[in-house]
Amino acid sequence: MPQYKAPLRDIRFVLYDLLDIEKHYSTLPGATDLNAELIDATVSEAAKLIETVIAPLNRSGDEESCHWSAEGVRTPKGFKEAYKQYCDAGFCAISADPEYGGQGLPPSLQLVVSELLSAANNSFCMYPGLTNGAIACIQAHGTSEQKQTYLPNMIAGTWSGTMCLTEAHCGTDLGLLRTKAVPAGDGSFNITGEKIFISAGEHDMADNIVHLVLARLPDAPAGTKGISLFIVPKLMPAGGGKTGERNNVKCASIEHKMGIKASATCVMVFEDAKGYLIGEPHKGLRAMFTMMNVARIGTGMQGMAQGDASFQGALAYARDRLQMRSLTGPKAPDKPADPIIVHPDVRRMLMTQKAFAEGSRALAYYLGTHADMTMRHAGTEVAKQSEAMLELLTPICKAFMTDTGFESTNLGMQVLGGHGFIREHGMEQLVRDGRILQQYEGANGIQSLDLLGRKVLANGGATLRVFTNQIDAFCAQHESSPELKSFVDALKAHSSEWHTLVGDILQRAIKNPDEAGAASYDFLSYSGYVTYAFLFARMAAVSLAKIKAGAPDADFYQAKIYTAKFFYDRLLPRTRTLVQTMGSGSANVMDLQDAHFAF
Amino acid sequence: MPQYKAPLRDIRFVLYDLLDIEKHYSTLPGATDLNAELIDATVSEAAKLIETVIAPLNRSGDEESCHWSAEGVRTPKGFKEAYKQYCDAGFCAISADPEYGGQGLPPSLQLVVSELLSAANNSFCMYPGLTNGAIACIQAHGTSEQKQTYLPNMIAGTWSGTMCLTEAHCGTDLGLLRTKAVPAGDGSFNITGEKIFISAGEHDMADNIVHLVLARLPDAPAGTKGISLFIVPKLMPAGGGKTGERNNVKCASIEHKMGIKASATCVMVFEDAKGYLIGEPHKGLRAMFTMMNVARIGTGMQGMAQGDASFQGALAYARDRLQMRSLTGPKAPDKPADPIIVHPDVRRMLMTQKAFAEGSRALAYYLGTHADMTMRHAGTEVAKQSEAMLELLTPICKAFMTDTGFESTNLGMQVLGGHGFIREHGMEQLVRDGRILQQYEGANGIQSLDLLGRKVLANGGATLRVFTNQIDAFCAQHESSPELKSFVDALKAHSSEWHTLVGDILQRAIKNPDEAGAASYDFLSYSGYVTYAFLFARMAAVSLAKIKAGAPDADFYQAKIYTAKFFYDRLLPRTRTLVQTMGSGSANVMDLQDAHFAF
Repeated sequence: MPQYKAPLRDIRFVLYDLLDIEKHYSTLPGATDLNAELIDATVSEAAKLIETVIAPLNRSGDEESCHWSAEGVRTPKGFKEAYKQYCDAGFCAISADPEYGGQGLPPSLQLVVSELLSAANNSFCMYPGLTNGAIACIQAHGTSEQKQTYLPNMIAGTWSGTMCLTEAHCGTDLGLLRTKAVPAGDGSFNITGEKIFISAGEHDMADNIVHLVLARLPDAPAGTKGISLFIVPKLMPAGGGKTGERNNVKCASIEHKMGIKASATCVMVFEDAKGYLIGEPHKGLRAMFTMMNVARIGTGMQGMAQGDASFQGALAYARDRLQMRSLTGPKAPDKPADPIIVHPDVRRMLMTQKAFAEGSRALAYYLGTHADMTMRHAGTEVAKQSEAMLELLTPICKAFMTDTGFESTNLGMQVLGGHGFIREHGMEQLVRDGRILQQYEGANGIQSLDLLGRKVLANGGATLRVFTNQIDAFCAQHESSPELKSFVDALKAHSSEWHTLVGDILQRAIKNPDEAGAASYDFLSYSGYVTYAFLFARMAAVSLAKIKAGAPDADFYQAKIYTAKFFYDRLLPRTRTLVQTMGSGSANVMDLQDAHFAF
Repeated sequence: MPQYKAPLRDIRFVLYDLLDIEKHYSTLPGATDLNAELIDATVSEAAKLIETVIAPLNRSGDEESCHWSAEGVRTPKGFKEAYKQYCDAGFCAISADPEYGGQGLPPSLQLVVSELLSAANNSFCMYPGLTNGAIACIQAHGTSEQKQTYLPNMIAGTWSGTMCLTEAHCGTDLGLLRTKAVPAGDGSFNITGEKIFISAGEHDMADNIVHLVLARLPDAPAGTKGISLFIVPKLMPAGGGKTGERNNVKCASIEHKMGIKASATCVMVFEDAKGYLIGEPHKGLRAMFTMMNVARIGTGMQGMAQGDASFQGALAYARDRLQMRSLTGPKAPDKPADPIIVHPDVRRMLMTQKAFAEGSRALAYYLGTHADMTMRHAGTEVAKQSEAMLELLTPICKAFMTDTGFESTNLGMQVLGGHGFIREHGMEQLVRDGRILQQYEGANGIQSLDLLGRKVLANGGATLRVFTNQIDAFCAQHESSPELKSFVDALKAHSSEWHTLVGDILQRAIKNPDEAGAASYDFLSYSGYVTYAFLFARMAAVSLAKIKAGAPDADFYQAKIYTAKFFYDRLLPRTRTLVQTMGSGSANVMDLQDAHFAF
């Protein structure tokens, strides 16, 4: 696989041409001085560091993986140094509060950097990723003292963070969790329990690790309404950013996984570990979801990033590998065979990768602007609107971008034929590293229930209507454009059909809730395709306008229009199947008795 | 993951109820004495050995993998002993010619055993699999002396076999191959060249390895019409089944792969190695395809087998794992949560796995009966008809069964949530071990070109018509059955639509061959769904008849009908998308210039 190159041209297209990000920042508190020059400089600097320092550790990190001993976890060679370089350059938490040493850049810009980091080295990106989630949580729910104690070192990257949710018997169903928090009498709590799947739970890259742990107080009600959140540092803070004695938390082992092998996935054991309540008692799950919602956009981004890195590898191979002649006659007659990019089926795979990467980038960055709004305009009407859009689109972003990302990494691997299966080429690693994304941060099936149940049916499709109103407005604006007609026609039909589907499922679900469960996954996929269709139509419209205005890089804009056309011709039609399967009811999955699944 | 259990009940259903295999064998030369008792005994004995001896080596083999040194390749602990036990029990080549020590059982029965072996341990199954291919080739093309020299030891399993096709610069495009064969003057040839991706090229389980090597004679025409096939033994046969001096062939290294890590994938270097021509000069590719066609059915079977093993693991987990309550109220009120099999979306995943496994088993075993006919009735009219069916359905079997098998292993892994990503559970290994199947033995994109170009368009759909005539006859026979009406209606529509699609693509392809290339993958998938639909309708009809006749295990037959209904409701509708994408033409993949795929 060739060295990863940050796709700067397409990033600029999404930021400036599609999202008009300069205008967006011009009214965003704390970002009003951000212009294209500053944005480009930030992204380019990140890209350079990531391409040259962090991407080269991706293969070696996979081969070496993390190693556990009673003393701690050793990350692969070079990770510690690269992490320091990354943090020293200020990228660990670039959107964090300047009051605590952050750069205060908008979350949307942090998201751009996270794409590059994940595409270059998905294991590596877990460490700052978790730290960022923990920072966001402490920032939102911590006391002033807690912020002062933890944030400066975490923002600098010298301390890292974790999210400790899962226990062996409960992942999705956190209401079952058992970890206990007993008041110690001095305002702190003694935390006892075992957590699994704790990313970056233990490692050798930071001086201290700040665990955010879900646990139950003695008087806690059962279920999810009895869960509180605690800060449990590995080493006790000793004032002035220093650390003191070791807390009673230890890493009992690390998991041996399919992928992201350089990310330490830890079993963490808390034995009367000292912890501090963060936020209100029994409202820990809500506080934790401050992190989870951001994490879910980040997870979607990781899915896209693996797919985009795979696209780069597959494209380079397809241009280079000579095999067979084009069906329409030799295209490289001077060579023993044509490069395989001449073959329509190879192009089908590459175009699919390209379309998923570009559609996903557009969606994630678009959500980034809404994240900006909710965080920087908190409490306002405009923030509420953005929150509603985020609520609707985050499960789509998380699940659809990781599903399509996984499809993409597999297509990229397929382009290489047997060579794709060989580890040294790096293409199969992208498949393995991306596979977890469909499972963690809420498995994609859970995302689909969240989308259909909580975000759509619960309000009778009202939030969805806000979104489709935007789609319909776009269609109305462009329906007389001959170049955009085919896009607009298909988009209008889908926008209307989307609500018909909601109405149909709602009616059935009222009588039998399993009807919603049986339709949920297909509904999420359907929603993903229509959302991308909207974004591709907008991208095509913008590109067309650029070409008509005589933009110098017309080839880029023309390629975008071709990609949009490919999406509409080849990927959007997947909704035809989904409409049928969604409408097929729950009996075909529920009628078979549990005992009769196998004989 | 639970210990693999051979799905004997479903195997018996396909053999006896669907295929009426006793009747089939009753007129098959060399198999007329095979009755249910003998068949069951053979399959049960194989199942027992595979479940208890070979399945337990699957995880450990993946972790240990193969190790290369200049002395040779060491297979994982236990492989050598298990291989000996497997061969000693007579399973290495049970369908081989009794004249050379084989049991002479029909190929269809060997295929059943190969399913179990692959499901239990896909790495392990590569070794006898390759040997079987080499046996078939020598049997078909070798001289009497060659057969006498090589077959007895290969059939006993003390010598193993390989297929040496691929070179670094040519996989699909074998016309480019460079390995040379120079006459040595004594009737033998000196073979020089380097082959890659040679499964079982070197290992420690057999006393000798018999390589079948594609190479060019000095006077060979360029391209695929100048390729000859040679037998190149690792150790020279010294008569009486003994071995003599070492030949000049060595394993230079082994590949580090995503999966099937216990299968040695070798770089083989031939330096004036002694080889013997097998078959006619310049007709080696045709001879090699004797092996390839059988290998492709076997590869499809491997895809199904990985999916079925994954289904077993996912089903056990879904029955055991307690998480959340059913949307329709608690189903296990005495437990802290319901087993996840109550959730419709979990059932969607399990039913998909079940349907793909059962549809695939039906297809593969059906092809097995045609393989019987072509081999045991060679030269007759009935063999020609079977050959035509095999030609049409083999690319579907190879590609569609490995695509759906891969989908299935991923669904199975998904059922386990985060636990699916952990190696010890074995679910992710099935994903990795199955992934190569879409790539080797002719990548699935190549299969799709073979199907659409050579097997369908080249004869204007005539062979396909023979197959759809069977479908139409089935529909005519059952169209008045109220229970089967929904199956028959959908099947009839697809049978007719299939030809409409062929006509449409043919018309477009005459003007522009890329139209075929751009439609090929979707056409293969479409063909797969319709083929399975036919098989599921037949299985439903058979099951319905059994229930009506008062069969004692009505639950089994009822489950089969539910599975058929699930297939028709939830999987067959994928053809709705494929019809659209196939019809969308080649411009959407061809218009974008190579240089504009990335900026």
